[in-house]
Amino acid sequence: MASEKKLNASTPYCLSDVKQWDIETDIAIVGFGGAGACAAIEAADAGAEVVIFEVASESGGSTKLSSAEIYMGGNGGTPIQKACGFEDSTEDMIRFLEMTQGELGDKEKIRSYCENSLDHYHWLVDKGARYKESFHKERAIMALTDDCLLYTGNEKAWPFVEHAKPCPRGHNLYIEGDNGGPFLMNALTAQVEKRSNKIRVEYEARVVTLIADEHNEVHGCIVRMNMQEYTVKARKGVILCAGGFVMNDDMLEKYAPKLLKATYKIGNPADTGTGIKMGMSVGANIINMSEGFVSMPFYPPADITKGIIVNQQAQRFINEDCYHSRVGATALNQIGNRIYFILHASEDFKPPMFLCAGYAGTGETVEELAEEIQLDTAMLKHTIDYYNRHAKQGIDPLFHKDAEYLEEIKAPYVALDLTPGNGALLPYFTLGGLETLTTGEVLTAGGEVIKGLYAAGRTTAGVPRRAEGYASGLSVGDVTFFGRLAGKQLAGAKSR
Amino acid sequence: MASEKKLNASTPYCLSDVKQWDIETDIAIVGFGGAGACAAIEAADAGAEVVIFEVASESGGSTKLSSAEIYMGGNGGTPIQKACGFEDSTEDMIRFLEMTQGELGDKEKIRSYCENSLDHYHWLVDKGARYKESFHKERAIMALTDDCLLYTGNEKAWPFVEHAKPCPRGHNLYIEGDNGGPFLMNALTAQVEKRSNKIRVEYEARVVTLIADEHNEVHGCIVRMNMQEYTVKARKGVILCAGGFVMNDDMLEKYAPKLLKATYKIGNPADTGTGIKMGMSVGANIINMSEGFVSMPFYPPADITKGIIVNQQAQRFINEDCYHSRVGATALNQIGNRIYFILHASEDFKPPMFLCAGYAGTGETVEELAEEIQLDTAMLKHTIDYYNRHAKQGIDPLFHKDAEYLEEIKAPYVALDLTPGNGALLPYFTLGGLETLTTGEVLTAGGEVIKGLYAAGRTTAGVPRRAEGYASGLSVGDVTFFGRLAGKQLAGAKSR
Repeated sequence: MASEKKLNASTPYCLSDVKQWDIETDIAIVGFGGAGACAAIEAADAGAEVVIFEVASESGGSTKLSSAEIYMGGNGGTPIQKACGFEDSTEDMIRFLEMTQGELGDKEKIRSYCENSLDHYHWLVDKGARYKESFHKERAIMALTDDCLLYTGNEKAWPFVEHAKPCPRGHNLYIEGDNGGPFLMNALTAQVEKRSNKIRVEYEARVVTLIADEHNEVHGCIVRMNMQEYTVKARKGVILCAGGFVMNDDMLEKYAPKLLKATYKIGNPADTGTGIKMGMSVGANIINMSEGFVSMPFYPPADITKGIIVNQQAQRFINEDCYHSRVGATALNQIGNRIYFILHASEDFKPPMFLCAGYAGTGETVEELAEEIQLDTAMLKHTIDYYNRHAKQGIDPLFHKDAEYLEEIKAPYVALDLTPGNGALLPYFTLGGLETLTTGEVLTAGGEVIKGLYAAGRTTAGVPRRAEGYASGLSVGDVTFFGRLAGKQLAGAKSR
Repeated sequence: MASEKKLNASTPYCLSDVKQWDIETDIAIVGFGGAGACAAIEAADAGAEVVIFEVASESGGSTKLSSAEIYMGGNGGTPIQKACGFEDSTEDMIRFLEMTQGELGDKEKIRSYCENSLDHYHWLVDKGARYKESFHKERAIMALTDDCLLYTGNEKAWPFVEHAKPCPRGHNLYIEGDNGGPFLMNALTAQVEKRSNKIRVEYEARVVTLIADEHNEVHGCIVRMNMQEYTVKARKGVILCAGGFVMNDDMLEKYAPKLLKATYKIGNPADTGTGIKMGMSVGANIINMSEGFVSMPFYPPADITKGIIVNQQAQRFINEDCYHSRVGATALNQIGNRIYFILHASEDFKPPMFLCAGYAGTGETVEELAEEIQLDTAMLKHTIDYYNRHAKQGIDPLFHKDAEYLEEIKAPYVALDLTPGNGALLPYFTLGGLETLTTGEVLTAGGEVIKGLYAAGRTTAGVPRRAEGYASGLSVGDVTFFGRLAGKQLAGAKSR
């Protein structure tokens, strides 16, 4: 097609202006990351003809850049959970996720995700995911071994531990190092390629806008390939799997400015919010836009959890055995922005593996440390004394850190600087997006389904809704699971 | 018109389906509160023909229900500020508002609001607002006397006081009691009525949806009056001044669930988000949706500020001389939901006027109090001892409460229960809405102006963006000021 005017994602192209269809298919999928891959496989297996448009030169998206841990459990336990001696109940998993997501959580999505988690495990294994029957006991952000199962969230941390029986649900792929992302995406890509009779993939193909009629029903999209624009007719509809908006500073400033206190974007360069904008252009609702994952990845080593984190008032404000993003998000909420991690400077002290926090100060005594880091001496002394007095008894009356990590903090002391902006790595990505049903159907602000439009992955607001309740494996779990549902559902829709 | 299908705010009515225009005007204004009234007056004074549609039986909206304090200053000072001996600078006012709104603030709106604040004062006085040349010195949420000027925000509180010279900017109307809202709205309504050659007002008139063409240009709206629907052609455009969404629980759950921890909605029954939905139906962007005013109105009496507020860990977390919504919002961010106000139980102790907080406990000693309110004794003892030790010296090393309110808290003690849900009045309203330019033009997510659509008031995200930085008078200030700009701007637009 000849493009008469500058096309942009926020304005749909009018169906009545389409002169010819350059490409025709049942389903057009925007983005070949974890969500797009799963949507395509399920759609093809349900008999639909699919074209995936991927802006990059290869598949993967942010899923490939991640460790691709997947949060799974419930239903008595996955085969790995069972092999490692863990029994898991769907109700515990639901209760845990509902509590961690708090008032932001989507109960229907959480229930669907948990009830079908075992099925999802089997589907992934069938598609080439491999998991070792082993438990990674050590507290970690990801298993850098090839071990599978690990605690990746706040399951054992107060207050959640009091309400849902903890069970490790992070499933790490059977590969050494942080290589789960390529492992999973290579497997899923192979599955897509195996279905080449049903699925066509176009790389370096940028979907620039949706095609819609005057009632906002979506009939296709316009894709730019080789500097040419092509009209794409999607007889059943379009699935937006185009990632979040962490790479779009304008959108971050507008929707999620609190994330800008963090320092390191997690995602791929195409996480520019284009999918969200395309949804909005036909009246889609956006929710949870101010929320994101934001973290202080202060462990491993797990032993570091025995230290205490204090704010500018030298007060503790969190149980340090929480998941790192719960610590990070709570830290960013403190009055006064200075944050310190105070530890015993043992001879074999190892600084955190990922955090890159500088040393703020050291001291043979608390007084010396307080002076070096410019905290109120009496407050810091009280905080450490109070903590130590109770740690010796194996209790933390204030924040209920688990006894496993309670140990007197002895002199000499070291303080790591966690203050945002002072060098520590504070990674972040977005958790807001289009409002969708569990089926992937996209909703208007009025709660109506937009005909012909589906979405999955970080283009949508999914199961993970806030840093305070995040667990590793929730986002890749969400994108693969709801990607599948969207593909399956749209494949069953009527053609236009 | 005969309505063939159920109309709803989230789906615009197609221009091509309009068979006849029942009402024609230059400008249709949805809502006759503070924003709508000011927009109508300015539009009429600029020569446009206006129809205001108000769903209630009289004018007023939430402005009439408020105290109608207006936050004004800068420009050397308003006549009242000057008469009371205060000089105010525009730059201090801007710096203060930018700092209090933080990363959520809209710099252009703040600058426009501040630079034109003196002009706005004169305009309001010209339209019938009356202000007494007097300063209400006592710390208060509103002046219940007929005094005018008072500190209504965080101007004198740390950390803001260190960055912008404090000046009282709350302007309370010249009337006793909490009667500013009716005073102001009666004056503005009289101005509207005086312009009956230009402005027609329809009461009990519910605008149900916008009328737009396939490019989302807005041409009018459909209004329901006497159980009949009428098409309204707005030759220049429509201004949405339909309030916020505090009365819509579905929208609160979806967009601003954190507000639901508060207990008391501030607004009028029509604050159902209909204006926001109508904007979204033609592709408008929504921003700041998760934010709202949420407060613990713990003063007056001002003396109560001498007490301390502690969280479930018996830690202080805020300077108690902050504005009440900064205290409230920070309290809701604490880990563990219990919050107590601890004070000396003097013989003439007066509980807060508005808060309705119950007594959580009393004690002749800290130990006794701690036991009654089930806080950790050692922590509470430390918190009170540390506070008292420094208060005697006139300093608050942790949160820098002003020396005016620093006084040793002596036995016997009383603790008021501020815990959300335990009876204290925690009022709230929304601060998110349509994204607009200072002119009132409504933007898409792509930053394009939607033709024929303007908005003002709490249907938009305005100058006040968060509870942590609110000041009384900011919302009515914003709605009247930007209502005026929208009316003036649209009056100058071309007719279609």
